[in-house]
Amino acid sequence: MSDTAPTRQASAWLAAFAAALDARDTAAAADLFLDDCYWRDLLAFTWNIRTMEGQAAIIEMLKATLDGRRPSAWSLSREATVENSGVEAGFTFETAVARGEGILRLRDGKCRTLFTAVSELKGHEEKKGAGRPLGVRHGADRGRETWSERRRREEAALGSTEQPYCLIVGGGQGGLALGARLRQLGVPAIILEKNARAGDSWRNRYRSLVLHDPVWYDHLPYMPFPEHWPVFTPKDKMGDWLEMYARVMELNCWTSSTCLSAAYDDGEKSWTVEVDRAGERVVLKPKHLVFATGAYGPPRMIDLPGADVFEGELLHSSQYADGRRFRGKACAVIGAASSGHDVSVDLWESGADVTMIQRSPTTVVKSDTLMELGFEIYSEQALARGIGTDKADMMVASTPFALLPESQKALYDRIRVRDADFYDRLRQSGFAIDFGDDETGLMMKAYRTGSGYYIDVGASELIIAGEITVRSGVAVERLTPKGIQFDDGSELAADVIISCTGYQSMHETVAAIVSREVADKVGPCWGLGSGVRNDPGPWLGELRNMWKPTAQDALWFQGGNLALSRFYSKFVALQLKARMEGIATPVY
Amino acid sequence: MSDTAPTRQASAWLAAFAAALDARDTAAAADLFLDDCYWRDLLAFTWNIRTMEGQAAIIEMLKATLDGRRPSAWSLSREATVENSGVEAGFTFETAVARGEGILRLRDGKCRTLFTAVSELKGHEEKKGAGRPLGVRHGADRGRETWSERRRREEAALGSTEQPYCLIVGGGQGGLALGARLRQLGVPAIILEKNARAGDSWRNRYRSLVLHDPVWYDHLPYMPFPEHWPVFTPKDKMGDWLEMYARVMELNCWTSSTCLSAAYDDGEKSWTVEVDRAGERVVLKPKHLVFATGAYGPPRMIDLPGADVFEGELLHSSQYADGRRFRGKACAVIGAASSGHDVSVDLWESGADVTMIQRSPTTVVKSDTLMELGFEIYSEQALARGIGTDKADMMVASTPFALLPESQKALYDRIRVRDADFYDRLRQSGFAIDFGDDETGLMMKAYRTGSGYYIDVGASELIIAGEITVRSGVAVERLTPKGIQFDDGSELAADVIISCTGYQSMHETVAAIVSREVADKVGPCWGLGSGVRNDPGPWLGELRNMWKPTAQDALWFQGGNLALSRFYSKFVALQLKARMEGIATPVY
Repeated sequence: MSDTAPTRQASAWLAAFAAALDARDTAAAADLFLDDCYWRDLLAFTWNIRTMEGQAAIIEMLKATLDGRRPSAWSLSREATVENSGVEAGFTFETAVARGEGILRLRDGKCRTLFTAVSELKGHEEKKGAGRPLGVRHGADRGRETWSERRRREEAALGSTEQPYCLIVGGGQGGLALGARLRQLGVPAIILEKNARAGDSWRNRYRSLVLHDPVWYDHLPYMPFPEHWPVFTPKDKMGDWLEMYARVMELNCWTSSTCLSAAYDDGEKSWTVEVDRAGERVVLKPKHLVFATGAYGPPRMIDLPGADVFEGELLHSSQYADGRRFRGKACAVIGAASSGHDVSVDLWESGADVTMIQRSPTTVVKSDTLMELGFEIYSEQALARGIGTDKADMMVASTPFALLPESQKALYDRIRVRDADFYDRLRQSGFAIDFGDDETGLMMKAYRTGSGYYIDVGASELIIAGEITVRSGVAVERLTPKGIQFDDGSELAADVIISCTGYQSMHETVAAIVSREVADKVGPCWGLGSGVRNDPGPWLGELRNMWKPTAQDALWFQGGNLALSRFYSKFVALQLKARMEGIATPVY
Repeated sequence: MSDTAPTRQASAWLAAFAAALDARDTAAAADLFLDDCYWRDLLAFTWNIRTMEGQAAIIEMLKATLDGRRPSAWSLSREATVENSGVEAGFTFETAVARGEGILRLRDGKCRTLFTAVSELKGHEEKKGAGRPLGVRHGADRGRETWSERRRREEAALGSTEQPYCLIVGGGQGGLALGARLRQLGVPAIILEKNARAGDSWRNRYRSLVLHDPVWYDHLPYMPFPEHWPVFTPKDKMGDWLEMYARVMELNCWTSSTCLSAAYDDGEKSWTVEVDRAGERVVLKPKHLVFATGAYGPPRMIDLPGADVFEGELLHSSQYADGRRFRGKACAVIGAASSGHDVSVDLWESGADVTMIQRSPTTVVKSDTLMELGFEIYSEQALARGIGTDKADMMVASTPFALLPESQKALYDRIRVRDADFYDRLRQSGFAIDFGDDETGLMMKAYRTGSGYYIDVGASELIIAGEITVRSGVAVERLTPKGIQFDDGSELAADVIISCTGYQSMHETVAAIVSREVADKVGPCWGLGSGVRNDPGPWLGELRNMWKPTAQDALWFQGGNLALSRFYSKFVALQLKARMEGIATPVY
């Protein structure tokens, strides 16, 4: 028999909360929370992605939104459980225009964290399962249009006689996942993919690239990878999957197409976008413009004085495809994060002489360790316990960013002990290791700056063995005709220099396509305002500009790894659908 | 609380059965069955697809197989239930070389039907779930071959420097499903698809074709259709899905490739197969040859005396693509089964004048009725009750063919009452209806002869309304320059005559590719030996030659609709895998 006490407690809390909201008694509602409390909301109350931290913030939000949202029908969706000495329960609810779901966590009868998210818009549900389309109009019909005829008509019309409601720039996992969501919601959209085929954004990366995240974390919406799919997907296999996905999901993906310029007309409330479609100039007039050009923006080309005199080859990791042409060459890799490591291994495997130049310490975690300790809820074991991708996504989203450092620090305390020998050996090789300013490790670096970490799949042992030389704690002063001169006066001869120095913020892509003025108005993407280097405060509680309204009307950012693209694409799509349907979406 | 009595009964039966088998006491084992009993086995005991009917047949089979199979570890796999006043239970078991599963049905404590099937071969399990491949060899490796390099090397080698273990002729659902199963089992295979792209076998059919079976019945192995997939898949969408499937499942599908000839060498135990691969002649030497050229064989061209003087256009339904070029023309459709109806509607919708010539009565069922009453276990409702495709497949397979007529007759008794008005109106239009010789309806016609039925998706109302004219109960005597002369002396003017007269047995394809001698030795495919017209006795209890060893060594037939292709491809693949691994497969 399961313990019914947690469910009774959660049920009582939810009833009291519902009663307070019904009475519009915001103080009573807030009093149901602990002092140290968090309410993370995805669209349901705020039509935004926001975390209210503390009772005062909750009261303020409720005062601004309760009358419009009219929440109701709060109901537990499963038996509550005891997790980490608190009661945890899933629930469903409704607002005037949507159905929602959430997760609450109680401690001593009061709420520590509340998570609310829109599931679907009433009257605009996706057609799936029992509600799926029939696929054919039975009976006889002299005006019958077949599926393929309708698809061809749609493809011919969209972007010429009919305008897409939404234009998505970028056909990687972010753009395709959003495109699929919009398709299922009936929002006309075009995806611009600069390469010749969908999936080429993966195919064009360096030869040995394999996803560092495991398959259970990487599913796209609607079509999970099959059971025999490898744990770590090779880049070309991912390319094929994305290409297939675009086709089977019936996405309007324009390949060999780049976005030349875009301007928003405040009067018309639409964009004018100039597109190069396989050499033909097309002007589109979408109502919304979504940048899905990768988790980050354009390549970050660091300033290298003397680059003009350097007689060797100088390239950025985004231009690096295959190390085999560098066999026997002296190669300097600037940067010691993921791409720096992957490129170094690829060069070493190709028979090049590799020196990695580490400008600042790196957070390194062994892949096996991270899979076992960090990806527990995205795993075969989790599936066996009934935790599928959707449920795992909700569990992850239900934890406010503010509380992540605490649990991540605990995780890295365990990891450092478990892999102490590995870290000792790596340090002894001269490689500088850190776990972030506050010892919170890889995931917090990913959210704060998206840089400075490596999931070790083999490079570290090459460094330990001295097969890849590391120069750490030095800065590049200038390039010379034959190599690099460092700030400590030492020199390194190099035939090839590869900058694995990451990418700029996505808002730099906006600057290039829309304008510097709009880019500056919108500001950088990503980061939490944590106050660490490259993620200046003030504290925001959510990722800057991602998946939510920005300072520029009708301009959106969709991005992140496969998991974030999968999960947040739903909320970008729901925001766009609501606007298309004329549903009021007051942004809090 | 669930009733535990059925489980106790099933458990006791299984224990007694296991004890009798352990003791090699075949009489005691047979005594656990009713007089009127059936044991259907897929490979586990017989390395064949066979149904033993009656205790004597069971004793005979056990005597021949028990020592070799050494069955053990019989165990219920779920709580038993009471179905149709009998106890039903699922179970698992093992043999010396395999793990198996089955379903038993008891009546008064004795077994009415037993079903046993191999699930997997020990030591040759598919790599999936927790056993899935890693996708990358972590660490550093100067001989590293990436996924795409390995795929390209395999594609280049297979069929030139390396021979496939198995050659599959036909890249429709049958060939692709089998190819996918073989791939997962590590059996090198090549699929020959005569068209330019995988999926073209569907794309090339007539414009308005839409699957008549619902989506829940149509899933391919490993990759189910997503939740938003339409109930009835349009043919071009099915084509795209198959093309994607071949790619994502990494099948070696040679397109624009036809099999010119094949000969078996009894000494070498291999085939010599001459292939036209996109214009290039290639000779392959596979150990096994599988015909997956469609549920049926080449088009059946009925003898039409006077065809040489007919001044109009004469074609077979397999050549019919689009009715729109027949607008305003007088069209005679010979045949009143599925393709005859579909083609007639397509012509009518295109503005042609259509007469359907019905040579023998047709079994017609309204699509809605069949979905509701006949496809109950492949439906959204079944899914909600926990019956997924795999479970439904096992439930269907567990009923011996000999018992189908009884339940099908009961189904059609209900259908005739439910749709009495529809049938009256259809008969009044002059259309001849039957439900088979023994009133067992559509599915039995499908299994016995694969012909003579139509799932009504609209044509019948056009016939009732007189929009499609029916000439029934007449035979074509001869064609005249301007049309058809019937055996009652009447004539029909026609600009176009379309023979919707079905397909020949698949063994005619063997005659064309291998030899008439081998084709005759193997004999026809499909049919149960039911004794009805076109399905002569004696009674076989299983479909002729399908998915199991034939009279010709190393020659196999894989075919059927999507559902049969899905389910039986597993057993064809397991038979081939066992042979490749040198596992003894004595065929009973």
